[in-house]
Amino acid sequence: MAKARLAVSLYVGLVHGPVRDKAGSEVTTSVTNLDIHDIARTCRTFGVACYFIITPLQIQHELVNRILGHWESDKGSLYNPDRSDALATTTLVKTILDAQSAIEASEGKKPLLVVTGAQLKGDGDESRLAQQAILDQRPILLLFGTGWGLLASTTDQADFRLGPITSCARDDYNHLSVRSAVAIYVDRLARSLCSP
Amino acid sequence: MAKARLAVSLYVGLVHGPVRDKAGSEVTTSVTNLDIHDIARTCRTFGVACYFIITPLQIQHELVNRILGHWESDKGSLYNPDRSDALATTTLVKTILDAQSAIEASEGKKPLLVVTGAQLKGDGDESRLAQQAILDQRPILLLFGTGWGLLASTTDQADFRLGPITSCARDDYNHLSVRSAVAIYVDRLARSLCSP
Repeated sequence: MAKARLAVSLYVGLVHGPVRDKAGSEVTTSVTNLDIHDIARTCRTFGVACYFIITPLQIQHELVNRILGHWESDKGSLYNPDRSDALATTTLVKTILDAQSAIEASEGKKPLLVVTGAQLKGDGDESRLAQQAILDQRPILLLFGTGWGLLASTTDQADFRLGPITSCARDDYNHLSVRSAVAIYVDRLARSLCSP
Repeated sequence: MAKARLAVSLYVGLVHGPVRDKAGSEVTTSVTNLDIHDIARTCRTFGVACYFIITPLQIQHELVNRILGHWESDKGSLYNPDRSDALATTTLVKTILDAQSAIEASEGKKPLLVVTGAQLKGDGDESRLAQQAILDQRPILLLFGTGWGLLASTTDQADFRLGPITSCARDDYNHLSVRSAVAIYVDRLARSLCSP
């Protein structure tokens, strides 16, 4: 896991299943090559300790491990060493609980489970979350849902719900791609976690 | 063009050509479906007045217009109205100058030409840029390069160079995807342009 210089360690999890589909039913979405790369590069840039790709499907684990293996190989890492560097902090797990356990094993403390979602009623902004994590000296696991978002059973059990991304220019339009949402939340949170 | 409520109008341009390739030569990159959608959704969320896709290749204009046409059609807009809404502010032009001229025609003022780049020596941050634009009451055209970035001849003629995206946790790693970089710069700049 990368050495972070944030006030507390920050972890990102991209949940592929179970999540909601357009009709609100529980589904498992496919991992996409671009979500792996874009989010790994964001995580690497901001010193995220580990990027968890969360999917219960064994066949998806095999596929993603082939992709990660390519960039670990001499061929991939010689062609684009920065890409292989970014992917070094990417880890596959089957459940959110597995990600929480891995963090607890590494940090000796349970992480604050933090959820995001375009429709969530937030408990506060990134600055408030950073204050709480620093006060408790607990690492943060920031979860994002693919598909139509995280299940209510996931967001209900979270320690902190981050409010939707807003702008003075917005008119309730809030349909960022998960790649863009991760970039914005991680940028905002990393700045709040940078020691003065 | 969308109605913005930012202190000055903000425009985004994604330059596909001419840009640099890995060896530093001038090339034109292909427009990708994902860059169209992700960046259009970011622009729509933050009230960007228009998202210019800039490529000199006529054949690419035909391809992109087919994609935009699908989402304007009844079929695309009924399936996902938010997606067709985002793409309504997306426009194809052949050159950076064409984008500047379109903005001047719409606003009655030349835009501040602002460039970004992982290796640029910046003139300041988003807050400083916003102050300058508000003082001059000029719209902003924020340019991003695909491939290995904008040409020196483009960055040299800019009115303002935004510094690279940094974090206290960084160790000079700065290889965000263009989609993530657009999301972060537009979020930061839109917040600086929100009237108090």
